[in-house]
This record gives sequence, structure tokens and C-alpha cells, in this order.
Amino acid sequence: RHYTTRIETLASNHVPRLLHAGGERPTPSPAAAPERRPFSRVTPEDLAFFSKIIPDRTITDPDILEASNVDWLKSVSFSEVLLRPQTTEEVSQILGYCNSRNLAVSPQGGNTGLVGGSVPVYDEIILSTALMNNVLNFDSVSGQYRLTAPILCVCICVKVLADGRVLDCLATLRKDNTGYDLKQLFIGSEGTLGVITAVTILCPRKPKAINVGFLGRCMLGEILSAFEFLDRECMRPLNTHLKLANPITDCPFYVVIETSGSNPTHDEEKLHQFLEEAMTSSQVIDGTVATEAKIKALWSLRERVTEALTHDGFTYKYDISLPVERIYQLVTDMREHLGDRAKSVVGYGHVGDGNLHLNITSPTKDPDLLASIEPFVYEWTARFQGSISAEHCLGLKKRNYIYYSKASLAVALMGNIKTMLDPKGILNPYKTLPDDLQ
Amino acid sequence: RHYTTRIETLASNHVPRLLHAGGERPTPSPAAAPERRPFSRVTPEDLAFFSKIIPDRTITDPDILEASNVDWLKSVSFSEVLLRPQTTEEVSQILGYCNSRNLAVSPQGGNTGLVGGSVPVYDEIILSTALMNNVLNFDSVSGQYRLTAPILCVCICVKVLADGRVLDCLATLRKDNTGYDLKQLFIGSEGTLGVITAVTILCPRKPKAINVGFLGRCMLGEILSAFEFLDRECMRPLNTHLKLANPITDCPFYVVIETSGSNPTHDEEKLHQFLEEAMTSSQVIDGTVATEAKIKALWSLRERVTEALTHDGFTYKYDISLPVERIYQLVTDMREHLGDRAKSVVGYGHVGDGNLHLNITSPTKDPDLLASIEPFVYEWTARFQGSISAEHCLGLKKRNYIYYSKASLAVALMGNIKTMLDPKGILNPYKTLPDDLQ
Repeated sequence: RHYTTRIETLASNHVPRLLHAGGERPTPSPAAAPERRPFSRVTPEDLAFFSKIIPDRTITDPDILEASNVDWLKSVSFSEVLLRPQTTEEVSQILGYCNSRNLAVSPQGGNTGLVGGSVPVYDEIILSTALMNNVLNFDSVSGQYRLTAPILCVCICVKVLADGRVLDCLATLRKDNTGYDLKQLFIGSEGTLGVITAVTILCPRKPKAINVGFLGRCMLGEILSAFEFLDRECMRPLNTHLKLANPITDCPFYVVIETSGSNPTHDEEKLHQFLEEAMTSSQVIDGTVATEAKIKALWSLRERVTEALTHDGFTYKYDISLPVERIYQLVTDMREHLGDRAKSVVGYGHVGDGNLHLNITSPTKDPDLLASIEPFVYEWTARFQGSISAEHCLGLKKRNYIYYSKASLAVALMGNIKTMLDPKGILNPYKTLPDDLQ
Repeated sequence: RHYTTRIETLASNHVPRLLHAGGERPTPSPAAAPERRPFSRVTPEDLAFFSKIIPDRTITDPDILEASNVDWLKSVSFSEVLLRPQTTEEVSQILGYCNSRNLAVSPQGGNTGLVGGSVPVYDEIILSTALMNNVLNFDSVSGQYRLTAPILCVCICVKVLADGRVLDCLATLRKDNTGYDLKQLFIGSEGTLGVITAVTILCPRKPKAINVGFLGRCMLGEILSAFEFLDRECMRPLNTHLKLANPITDCPFYVVIETSGSNPTHDEEKLHQFLEEAMTSSQVIDGTVATEAKIKALWSLRERVTEALTHDGFTYKYDISLPVERIYQLVTDMREHLGDRAKSVVGYGHVGDGNLHLNITSPTKDPDLLASIEPFVYEWTARFQGSISAEHCLGLKKRNYIYYSKASLAVALMGNIKTMLDPKGILNPYKTLPDDLQ
């Protein structure tokens, strides 16, 4: 392939290790990634330019690059250049240069993406925001932090566009109706419309009282701050693989609720009133409330499900939004649909928001199993007007499924916006928008 | 002027009354509105087309048109056609036709705008959503109303674009990260990017307990549902013009707070704890809490300020966002700046959100006074990175001030988005975006 040739001809300390992360041959599945587009390739002159803008932060050492070339899904990419700017100005100069040179760029924050969106597909330059972690100021009256952006999203922000121009929408106002809302366009755009370099975050006052309960069903008022669920099939790997004990009776479903409020006495009363009602209802079998020491332990039952499932072998992960009353039906239908082809089919997630994490495990990667899961899961979701990506965005892996959740005209408009903001398409190519629009 | 000629030549029951709302000659101030752009003019064939699409809801009767041609600021326009569609399909056909005929359209909801944005400037066709007031369904589990759109904004929605294409983003999901967020672009776009024809609104459960207090300063926790202020200069017209009595001692500032919660006993305890602290502090002089019967009376002290001020003569109204600690400084600086040129300079508003309503009264409209107020008020706001329009949008009146609150590049991008979505510029022309972009 031409990119293999490219690696061989580039004068560098390149070690073949990049080609063998996890022992697997790192060929992007033909079904997954489109052909490499005719972007320019990095030259020694390019490296010299970057080194001038960000000396010591232009990285070509493959050992260091490896962490940025591999994501949590073990997708592997082939970037040979990792840039670590610290300021908006540096990002602006870098992007302006890349745009003029037609060099593709993959912005990367914490590299925690789950849809192949946070690593390059081919040899895109990795633009890491890892060093953009300065708090510019904190306003204790309003509770607002202004900081440079270590992660690829949040709030009102400063953005650098594909051609290097800086778009300043950094404001600290809760209400502003002057013109169109551009900020929201960039949030969740997965680095394809611009690079966010500074944000303002509003921090609510730390609540005086936090309570965590683990039970069957739930409904609290203004103090409810979390409402999560997991099913019996999640408890199994928690018990088996992580040796975490079930603090209550075996049940088909478990709910973790958390309250946060300004008056501990009131919150405890509310919580106990609720628990009394819940426990006497036929829908709650058992429950427990954590004292401060045990809050972490209770939460870990919900938070470590992902980790527990990895011990089954390989996990196919889906992040779906559904009308709340349908949130578990997808799990049962999938279980029935797959029969014994899967090791485990589990459901957990942010039930308060209608957000299901459907996970299917298998001893190893299994293309036949995958073919049974997809497009079944997307068609099912679309049938009930759900979202095929509640939180994780589309990245590389889900870009072509966007039509299951968005109308063609909406997608066409997104394409127009992309073209308008990044005419050369250098920002995180191959992602978010479907191939027919790239 | 050519539009006067146009009115005379159109065969209709046109009555000259349109030209004399409020007894004033209704010429748009040259400083306010740009020249009429070369849109087509309505012909009998156009009327015939509309009558075919929406029989009996194509209105040319000037008596009926008058209400839609005049807004709260007594801006007067000259539309001769008022259309009242009932469905998305009708809106789609109307806009598709207008786009092909190059006929300008002013979408109109409740006509309550305060920036000249809700009425035409010249003879634009008024597209009223007044009859689009059907509840399509209500989901009692999620608390979501789906309805056609009697007002020109809210939530996740269906939009009809300038050329008649229907953009369906109607969803009932709290979390959805599939592609770019287009919805937010349209919200607050003042009818210049598309016409919203259906929305889904999430209704929180009615709180079990509401308390309203009127006092000097405030900070409550998760049950705080409103936090408004008004100054002593607002109390004067309330007392004098509306005969509303001050329920407490004369103070420089008054605050109305409201709590909403799920447990009346808890909320009362929180409120009284807060009041005890507040009253013993040096910052609160006096206060009162409303029993249910008196809640309305307390709220009216805040809600009728606008009305009370109209009795002074003429009001210049400004809707500003500022860092909370500066929210009143603009009022004092303006008062000092104007000296005795104004009758009254008052401040009130949503202090919890940093949103000030600055109002300046005068016995009559006074261009010299206006010249002292503007651009002083906008320059002052810009100096502290405030918003020159927190809630009311820009409309006609504030379109050229957008640069006080938005960077040039941001405004340029808005222009690109406008051109992309409405290439002929037929949707609510002359508004929102500054003249150099229209």
C-alpha cells in the first residue's frame, strides 16, 4: 500500500512496532474506513516549520506516538507526527499552515473515544490538546472557570478554524441572543469543524449533602442528581471477574440513585420517605443506602461494568437513546435475536435520560456475530426514533449510520456547513459525516 | 416612495389607516431601516395561489392586517398580505412558492417582539403561525408535549427552509450526538433561517410547593426557581401610576425570590432559615413572605414595571447581560451620564442570570436623548464583554450593533450560514444580521 511505502521512505526512527499493537495486523477493515484521500504527506520542511512554532513539542518518536495512534478499541493508525501546542496562537499557526499545505489533521484530547474518532485513520497529523490544561481564571462570584481545553468539548469557547482563523465566542454570560448560536455547532462536532482551544465552565456550588442508594426503581425531586441502572447480567461479571459483591438480593434490575442538596437533614428525610414508599411497593425488592465511607463502593458497581465485561473477551458496545419506556426492550430483543451466538448481552446506563449502554460480549472478535448485531441494532433504534449515538458521537465507526437517526436533508446541511468551515476537509477527515458526503 | 405607489395601485379594500397608527407618520427612520431590496411585489396571481393553498386564511383586509403590521414599539409596516397556515405542509408550499417568486416573507408568532423583528419593514408577506396551535400529543411518562408552533421558538423542532424543504429534527431524546447540532442554529435565529412549525417541549412536574418572598438579597439552593430585582426608581411609577403599594420599607433595591420544590415543609424550613440569616445580615433591611393568596400581588410588583413606566411617556428599553457584579453599575453610570435629560433611569431584571433591563423614560420621544443613550449603552456593555441583547434578540433595531457583542469572524460566519440556508434572502430580510452583510 502506498502508506506502507511512505513509512519506509520517511527518514525517522520509525520502529515497526506501530504495525503490531496487540499482536494484530493493523489493517483498517475495508468495510470500516474509506480510501485515503489525496492529502499531502509530511515532509522534512513541514517538520522544520512545526519545530519552529512549537520547539520540543513536535514529536516523531514512534514510542511516544504509539499511545496517540491507538485508542481504547485498539484501533491503530499511522501518524508519524504528534504536535502538542499550548496556546490558541500556536494552534492557529499550525492549522493555517496545514490548510495551506493540504495536510490532514486529527485533533486529539484525552484519546478516550469509543467510535474510532480520536485517532487518525491513516497518517493524519495528530494535534494534541494535552498541554492545553491551564486555568486562565476562576471567578468565585459566578463560579466560572476559564481554561484552555484539555478535552475536545464543553462550553462557550474559543475555536480555531481549519484555515487558522480564530473564532472567539468565549463569553461568561448565561443569556445572549445576539445573532445565531454558533457555539453549539462546534460542540459535538468531533474536531471536524474547528479545534476548541479555550472554554468557560460554570461550576455549581458543591452540594452540602450527597446520598447514594442502590435499589429497584426511583423518582425523587429537585435533589436527584443521578439515576443509573444495570441489569442482572451486568452483576455476573462484576461478581465473577472483579470479585465485587452484590450488596443486596439478586434482582433482575438494579438502580443507583444519588441525591445532592443544600440541606443534609432535608435530603435524608426525602430519601427515607422515598425509600419507605419504594420498599412497600411491589416494584422494589431490596435496597441499601450508603454511608459516606461506602459511597465509592456502591458507585463502583455501576462504574466498573465496562471493565468487568472486558474479561469475557471482546465487547461490542452500543450507546443508544430511546424513549424511556423502551429502554430495556432492545436488550431483550437483542438477546432473543442472538440466541447463543453471544456470550453475554447486557444493558446498563443513564436510565433517567433514556440512554442505554447495550454491550454484547464474545470470547473473541467474531465477524459473524457482528453481522447479526448490525444493522439489527440500528434498525431497531430507528424504528422507535431513537439515537444511535446518545453520547459517544459518530467518529469513524458510526459515520455511515447517521441516516438511522438524522433526516437526509439534515445530513446534507451538515455537509454544507462542513464545506463552508473547512473547504479542504483537512480537519479529522473520514469521520462524523457519511462517506457519500466526504 | 415607491411603496406608497404600490399601495395605491393594488386593488384592495386598503384603508389609509395603516399609515397612521397612533397618529404618527409611520416613516421608518432613515437611521433605522435600510432601503427596500428588489424583492418582487405581490400580484393578483400570487394571491390566487395562496388562496388555493390556504383558502379563507389568505388575508388582505387592512383592518385585520393592522394588528400584524404594528408591534409593541409601535413600529408600523406595510404588508398587504397576511397568511395563516395550519400545517407544516402548507408552510412548505408557501415558502417554496415565495422563494421561486422572490417574494420576501416575515414570519410572525405572537408579535410581542421588542426589537422591531416581529413585523415587516416594508411590504413583506406576513406568515403568521397563530393557527399552528395544535397539541399533537402529550407523553405523560416523559412529560413531553409535541405541538405545532404558535410562537417563533422553543425546542427540538421541525423547520421549513426558505425554499420550502422541510427539515425534521423533531425528536424526544434528551441525549443525541449524531452529527452537528443544527437545532440550536435555528433557535433564536429570528425567522431568518427557517420557519419552525412544530416543537417538543419537556414539561417538568408541577412543584408541590411554591414560595415567594420579597427582600433585599438572596441565595438559596436547589429550590430557587426565580431571583429577580428592581430598584427604587421602579417602585416610584408602580406606586404613582399603578397605585401598587410597597409591602415593605423604602429600600434602594428589592428582590423577588421564588422557591419551587417537592416537599413544602422542607422548602418552608429552607426559606425561613435563609430569611433569618438574611434579616440579621446588614444587607437586608426588610422583607415579607407571601401566603398563597398574596403571591400574585408580590409578583405584580416585578411584572408590572414595564407597564408602570409607560405612564411616564416614552420608554427607551435595553436588555443587557453583564457579569453579575456589574449588573447595576450601568444604571448608575447612565443616570450620571444623562443628568436631567431623562425623566427616569431604572434598572430591573433577572439578576440571577446577570440580565439587566435598563429603561430610560422621557415625556415624549426625544432624538437628542436617544443620541446620548446610544451608542454609550452599547460601548459600556462591550467594555465589560456583556451582551447587548440577553433575551430580545436583534430584530431590526439592534442588527447593526451586533459587533459590540460578537467578533467579526463570528458575524461573517453567520452571514455564510444565512446565505447557505436562504440564498435569496427572502426570510425576514433587514433583520438580525448587520447591513454590511445583508
